[in-house]
Amino acid sequence: MSNELLQHITYPSDLRKLSPDQLPKLAQELRDFVINIVATKEGHLGASLGVIELTIALHYIFNTPDDLLVWDVGHQAYPHKILTGRKDIFHTNRQLNGISGFPKRSESEYDTFGVGHSSTSISAILGMAIASKLQGNTTKQHIAVIGDASIASGMAFEGLNHAGVTDTNMLVILNDNAIGIDPSVGALKEYLTKAKVGVKPRTNNIIEALNFNYFGPIDGHDLPTLLKTLEILKTTEGPKLLHIITTKGKGLKQAEENQVKYHAPGKFDASTGDLISKDSTGLPPKFQDVFGHTILELARKNDKIVGITPAMPTGSSLKYMMDEMPDRAFDVGIAEQHAVTLAAGMAAQGLIPFCTIYSTFLQRAYDQVIHDVALQDLPVIFCIDRAGIVGADGATHHGVFDIAYLNCIPNIIIAAPADVIELRHLLYTASLGLDHPIAIRYPRGRGHITNWKVDMQSLTIGKATQYTTGSDIAILSTGTIAHNVINALDSLHQPIGHYHFCFIKPLDADLLKQILQQYKTIITVEDGVVKGGFGSSIIDFANQHQFKNNITTLGVPDQFIHHGTVDELHDISGISSESIQKVVKNSYNF
Amino acid sequence: MSNELLQHITYPSDLRKLSPDQLPKLAQELRDFVINIVATKEGHLGASLGVIELTIALHYIFNTPDDLLVWDVGHQAYPHKILTGRKDIFHTNRQLNGISGFPKRSESEYDTFGVGHSSTSISAILGMAIASKLQGNTTKQHIAVIGDASIASGMAFEGLNHAGVTDTNMLVILNDNAIGIDPSVGALKEYLTKAKVGVKPRTNNIIEALNFNYFGPIDGHDLPTLLKTLEILKTTEGPKLLHIITTKGKGLKQAEENQVKYHAPGKFDASTGDLISKDSTGLPPKFQDVFGHTILELARKNDKIVGITPAMPTGSSLKYMMDEMPDRAFDVGIAEQHAVTLAAGMAAQGLIPFCTIYSTFLQRAYDQVIHDVALQDLPVIFCIDRAGIVGADGATHHGVFDIAYLNCIPNIIIAAPADVIELRHLLYTASLGLDHPIAIRYPRGRGHITNWKVDMQSLTIGKATQYTTGSDIAILSTGTIAHNVINALDSLHQPIGHYHFCFIKPLDADLLKQILQQYKTIITVEDGVVKGGFGSSIIDFANQHQFKNNITTLGVPDQFIHHGTVDELHDISGISSESIQKVVKNSYNF
Repeated sequence: MSNELLQHITYPSDLRKLSPDQLPKLAQELRDFVINIVATKEGHLGASLGVIELTIALHYIFNTPDDLLVWDVGHQAYPHKILTGRKDIFHTNRQLNGISGFPKRSESEYDTFGVGHSSTSISAILGMAIASKLQGNTTKQHIAVIGDASIASGMAFEGLNHAGVTDTNMLVILNDNAIGIDPSVGALKEYLTKAKVGVKPRTNNIIEALNFNYFGPIDGHDLPTLLKTLEILKTTEGPKLLHIITTKGKGLKQAEENQVKYHAPGKFDASTGDLISKDSTGLPPKFQDVFGHTILELARKNDKIVGITPAMPTGSSLKYMMDEMPDRAFDVGIAEQHAVTLAAGMAAQGLIPFCTIYSTFLQRAYDQVIHDVALQDLPVIFCIDRAGIVGADGATHHGVFDIAYLNCIPNIIIAAPADVIELRHLLYTASLGLDHPIAIRYPRGRGHITNWKVDMQSLTIGKATQYTTGSDIAILSTGTIAHNVINALDSLHQPIGHYHFCFIKPLDADLLKQILQQYKTIITVEDGVVKGGFGSSIIDFANQHQFKNNITTLGVPDQFIHHGTVDELHDISGISSESIQKVVKNSYNF
Repeated sequence: MSNELLQHITYPSDLRKLSPDQLPKLAQELRDFVINIVATKEGHLGASLGVIELTIALHYIFNTPDDLLVWDVGHQAYPHKILTGRKDIFHTNRQLNGISGFPKRSESEYDTFGVGHSSTSISAILGMAIASKLQGNTTKQHIAVIGDASIASGMAFEGLNHAGVTDTNMLVILNDNAIGIDPSVGALKEYLTKAKVGVKPRTNNIIEALNFNYFGPIDGHDLPTLLKTLEILKTTEGPKLLHIITTKGKGLKQAEENQVKYHAPGKFDASTGDLISKDSTGLPPKFQDVFGHTILELARKNDKIVGITPAMPTGSSLKYMMDEMPDRAFDVGIAEQHAVTLAAGMAAQGLIPFCTIYSTFLQRAYDQVIHDVALQDLPVIFCIDRAGIVGADGATHHGVFDIAYLNCIPNIIIAAPADVIELRHLLYTASLGLDHPIAIRYPRGRGHITNWKVDMQSLTIGKATQYTTGSDIAILSTGTIAHNVINALDSLHQPIGHYHFCFIKPLDADLLKQILQQYKTIITVEDGVVKGGFGSSIIDFANQHQFKNNITTLGVPDQFIHHGTVDELHDISGISSESIQKVVKNSYNF
């Protein structure tokens, strides 16, 4: 691997010493660098390969970090990180105490705004552009790079709609590769596709309708054209949008051909691109796959069942249903707000909508959950994926707030299965038609049960389960963190009660009273923030019924948790098996 | 007032017995009916007057309730309510146990979807249209009526973007009157304005770019044209949009001329339109006005201060600043998500953004508060208006969830002033530059202090205040509900401690420990949901520090509270002076 040019570049100031005709070679080196490290260290691949040339051109033409640059979502920012002082630590990407997989203000002055969730870049850069204007700076440039999947989200539209009536020095670069994590969807995507082949007029288009000066489309891998165009845009005043066409995974054949797979491919052979397949024979299935297969199984028997995902058909495994029943399973794009109210509309007309959304993204539809679903008590079934600590994606992606933010909403049932079989039972129970909305939260990745395909059973809403009984101490857990509790107790050989609360709301009041009478010390464990979560509900319940037990609540503390492995972060949060065991031992004073 | 035609109409089936040429007369009668009742009973006026003809035409041409109709926001649905079985109870509008000021499913089968917050109609009606299609119904029509201010919100764009790639029988009626509650803003609004006067081409426009069949613009007060057009649309397949031009307040001269004032004018003379001005001499000011004047006062001295409102300049009183400093105070339209991330972008570049949002609407920007502000610990100042029970607007508008949904977010300071003077001090304190985001919540309407314009003081973050001291019982309140507590204690003549927690987060740990040691019984009071709120935090604190006090938490119970006066709803929620007094008496057993 040649490193001739890249080895001399630490910061964009070094980059700017190269001549324009050296840049294509640098692009090749940078591409190889990304491929080589991601091949062994894992992480996001395709998006970064698609913006190699753009990243070089931006830092070459603009005066970063004085000119301000925001990468929407940020999983395409690896080349940006490498060119802005982080080349030598790039191999620590996404590891505990290593650099973040996303731009992060605390990491570098070149990361002007932390990202992770999509479609924030236009609002953020507009805020910065207005700040520059008010501060009397008329030459500073403000650039947001946003993909075609992300620009179709409502929040991006709100940003464009406002920016169009300002006279800020703002450049939106629409990085159009026709794919987010899964292929882009929606009317705007179809429009942009037509724009690329010239069917739609270049002038008077949807972007110009919003008062933006429209440039493009141009080939985003063609460095001379990029440089020339950015040079012009650098001195073009007011809001403007450059439409560039790129290929996700550019430069690695397999990544270009299988863009969904190579979004974040895991380990692969850097020279051939071949995936280093992990042998998953005999491994327990992912929660996502149990969800995906089970909803399909249910949908085959009940034609009222529909499925909705905002842009995560692969990640959520709703794709199984989409493949078999394309008219009953919907990818609505990055549109969580719409997804939830769409589900509410469907439920209002008698369908049984399963709306699967990652916990962290359901935050985007909080009002819709309250106002459109819960207030009307519509039986929408929320399948809250990636609940709890997610690991390497870090603070922007952990699904740790959902219990707290749903707990305060009337009418909604909140459930967290201990394993994939209970998930299956819950999906079945919900499909029978509840009179209320229900939220079913489950984590990212594999469970611990291999033979998941058991007959489905209807669960009693609000019923908790006694796993073990004991004398002084009872551990009350909810969700899959039960597994950590079981491990913790395994080696203790003490008579400790362990109760699994599949239902966080409503709580099992009868069993809870019995537990509070029977045990002096209660320890609650959850894979979410302690503040306002399951443990808080237990304390509230005890208080309300005049119990005076000693209650310790374990869960994610009141601080943001960054990236690392799930086990590392469970440990930091005090909910690993070891942490739980330590708390139990302290309670016993042994 | 002639009532010749209207008197025979209870349901749309009665309406359909009229001949088309009778409809203009009915429109006049219906308009008069609305004016006469709203003149004495109060409520929303202008929006309903603007859709009199549209409402008649829709129910005349379409087969409601089999054809499904959703009114976006819903404050324009008075004529709809009157024509769909609620004429005789329309005078109970917005009163306790009366009909709701918004469409509500539980009220009528003609109210197909509950509304209140803007921009939900397209998603909801698309969900219904998809349901019809899956249920094999190909003739049913699905209609969403949405204003030009509401269609500019991101959620509406998400709905259009999805709808455009479906083949559902869906009609969006864009009711374009160039105003929401305040005049519409943004690039789309400018575009639509040009479309009206024919500057932009009717074909290949922004709506058609999203795969909608575009019809119009037509005069929305011209009944024959409306009827003719809707008749065509009734049998036009696929997604289509009809652009109608209306005048808010149509038919009442003053309402047409002063559209902001007559959105919800209070009592007025039905014949002249003159407002029946309440003598407000000597009345304490509204919290909104204290906010509005104070931020302006602060902004004059510190040019880093900026203000942001999503479409509520008048309601929030940010308009004072907008009038004097139009370049530093921003109405971004109905775009809460954008508003919050815009503020984050500004804060990232050193400005001091005051982002004023109604509590119930901040739900729309929940993810942005977590992901863009709190995670980056940016010192955005959220001025949370209409916090607590708001009264006649009802369940969709109460600001009762904010404490609970903010409490679980790390880094954020949450404050609730007891009165307008403390609000002023808080705004000043925040303007000095905190290292964290802060949320300052205050209610709708007038406080109890007249001489509010005192010198501003810097408050110590996290410090609570002892109002009174006592022996056995302590009441801990947060926010303006302190007033109810003071009233409750006034007539009891008992030594009861009353402590005001201006800061919900962080809590005043020192004082709290002292209180928990000193008093056996603790009663917490808040104007928000008890679940996860201030009281829960107190219980958590007590539990964490091994206090075993008896703690009773008063606040909005875990159910949706509907409409009525604030006092009535405080009573229902158990936080009126009387309710508090009763709880105190029970604690004393006297």
